[in-house]
Amino acid sequence: MTELAFDPHDPVALTQALIRCPSVTPAEGGALHLLAEVLRQAGFETHLVTFSDEGTPDVANLYARIGAADRPALMFAGHTDVVPPGDEGRWSQGPFSGAIVDGELFGRGAVDMKGGVAASVAASLRHLAAHPDDPIAFLITGDEEGPAINGTVKLLDWAVAKGDRIGHCILGEPTNPAQLGDMVKIGRRGSLSGTLVVHGKQGHVAYPHLANNPVPQMVRLLAALTEGELDRGTAHFDASNLEIISIDTGNKAFNVIPAEIRATFNIRFNDLWNRASLEEHIRSRLDAAAGNLVSYSLAFERSASEAFLTEPGPFVDAIVRSIEAETGRRPALSTSGGTSDARFIKDVCPVVEFGLVGKTMHQVDERVAIIELESLARIYQRLLEQYFS
Amino acid sequence: MTELAFDPHDPVALTQALIRCPSVTPAEGGALHLLAEVLRQAGFETHLVTFSDEGTPDVANLYARIGAADRPALMFAGHTDVVPPGDEGRWSQGPFSGAIVDGELFGRGAVDMKGGVAASVAASLRHLAAHPDDPIAFLITGDEEGPAINGTVKLLDWAVAKGDRIGHCILGEPTNPAQLGDMVKIGRRGSLSGTLVVHGKQGHVAYPHLANNPVPQMVRLLAALTEGELDRGTAHFDASNLEIISIDTGNKAFNVIPAEIRATFNIRFNDLWNRASLEEHIRSRLDAAAGNLVSYSLAFERSASEAFLTEPGPFVDAIVRSIEAETGRRPALSTSGGTSDARFIKDVCPVVEFGLVGKTMHQVDERVAIIELESLARIYQRLLEQYFS
Repeated sequence: MTELAFDPHDPVALTQALIRCPSVTPAEGGALHLLAEVLRQAGFETHLVTFSDEGTPDVANLYARIGAADRPALMFAGHTDVVPPGDEGRWSQGPFSGAIVDGELFGRGAVDMKGGVAASVAASLRHLAAHPDDPIAFLITGDEEGPAINGTVKLLDWAVAKGDRIGHCILGEPTNPAQLGDMVKIGRRGSLSGTLVVHGKQGHVAYPHLANNPVPQMVRLLAALTEGELDRGTAHFDASNLEIISIDTGNKAFNVIPAEIRATFNIRFNDLWNRASLEEHIRSRLDAAAGNLVSYSLAFERSASEAFLTEPGPFVDAIVRSIEAETGRRPALSTSGGTSDARFIKDVCPVVEFGLVGKTMHQVDERVAIIELESLARIYQRLLEQYFS
Repeated sequence: MTELAFDPHDPVALTQALIRCPSVTPAEGGALHLLAEVLRQAGFETHLVTFSDEGTPDVANLYARIGAADRPALMFAGHTDVVPPGDEGRWSQGPFSGAIVDGELFGRGAVDMKGGVAASVAASLRHLAAHPDDPIAFLITGDEEGPAINGTVKLLDWAVAKGDRIGHCILGEPTNPAQLGDMVKIGRRGSLSGTLVVHGKQGHVAYPHLANNPVPQMVRLLAALTEGELDRGTAHFDASNLEIISIDTGNKAFNVIPAEIRATFNIRFNDLWNRASLEEHIRSRLDAAAGNLVSYSLAFERSASEAFLTEPGPFVDAIVRSIEAETGRRPALSTSGGTSDARFIKDVCPVVEFGLVGKTMHQVDERVAIIELESLARIYQRLLEQYFS
């Protein structure tokens, strides 16, 4: 058994140790091995599992579980891979130093999300000291900032196939815009992307009657896609939103009417829609605008994700009470922002997201206040106590 | 003096000889030297002049004049350079063979416009036999199908600087859509191209309130540019027309709102407009649509050309009568189609365009009926007689 150089009950020391592992996605960088060692020494059954897929790098992942096998576990999910540090010369502290200056711990992953992972591990170890039979699991991927193909999806399948019982999940992504306790995410909007191509007929610009310019037809179709709202939002979701991402023709000749033009768009949608109903709605808008005059083709990306909501109830209440007891703030229950690995976890068990403050994530001088790291560990510990009581 | 292998009074033989010179732009291919020799033997003063410019190939040109120096010449303008033949295997006769099959002469340049040049030379030689003092000039470029920088513009300047008097010009481009005698071009629309850039703010598609998507703003500006007519045409011109040529963003990421988007457009405009008034009109349409909400920049291409009209009058009448006498058809007086070198010549003297039938120009199996070549030579000869009587 390797002797650890720090106390894993201390979320600050554990965050520092993790930041010093240069785990820029898809590199493991020692981070998962370190976590596995910490958890194994605490009595967890640990599994380091590497997944592969054509065209993507191999990625290491960690699954760990402790406690009664016949009771559903509370699972902490997260990732140890980080985005690249960018220009290291612009950092005031080394991005892999874990240096603490004026009460702030610096480093890539400080809030997204080695800090969150460390807080959940510290909280679990403290809880297990008094309640060694309570079932706790960890689902930690090295492929959250990458293509997300060899990470959470496959590790979840692997854990489910293994037969482990999982009751609920808390994902420790940085959910707070400004202060710890601001916001819990109880769902996410869905995401659907599509590519629209309008087919015309090429010709000389001086003879437009012999050609069929697809550009103004595309303008008409896009106006139809963007005018009017998709909806006005629901109890827990903002209004769905469509953004046109790109329009491209590639025609360099000022005297040529192009043969075709393409546009791409992305929709972030709420629980009034699913992928199928939204695709049908987009097609009907386009058909109405196109009539018989415009020839277009439309393809939707296969990588769409559905909107989901973890309905407020006892589990969400336990999280909210834990946050309120520690911070004095009552968090907003939000479904805003981009997608997260919660979109995969929600197929296995109810999932809620709560972590650190996201302000500095993906930026130069990413950092976390050490009092916030300690607060987050205490919030998680309160949640464990409530969950198993 | 080289003995010619053909009779230059015969437009068919001269067209064949020119087609056998592979003068794919910018190559001279022997075509201008052949013409210069023909004209010199007929008593013309001939000048082969090569022009150069940075970034463009050197191009040879021919200027020739005969007859009384104190009287204004009738000038035939044209070009001997041709577009590439494309896939030679698809031609039923070699593109540089000048083969005659079933009364049709095949080859690249047969109608555009070695045939037209040959008809004007043959007509001039026949006319000069009876009227040796009538002043006739030839302005033949090798840079009509190329960048048009080292051709007509510079050769005109050169001829004007030389002090030659030029009365009127006939440009022998193929002007007839279907039959010889269909159409005379008495002017051309102007052409103005522009590039419009809308500036937004890049951001993540899940946080559109933190970004400023320039794409729907561009859609709005382009709708404003294309809705409603610019005008309804004039006595001799079709309505002006704006075509959007390309819209480009180059954003490959479905989760990113782009920072900017650009569009290019081209306007073919009639004599109600000039470059300045049209630029002002476009800016005012864009400003009205943009309000204070859209940040855009607009640049117009320097290579714009103004619309021009050679007013119907004695010169146009002489051409119409010559065509009617030979073909029995009264030609339409048109200003349709693309630009031509007439846009440069109109600054020096009135210019009218009349040549062969354009149906096969720039295509595989470009060809001309030999009776049409002979008819065109007779039309030009009738014009010379009327012009100098």
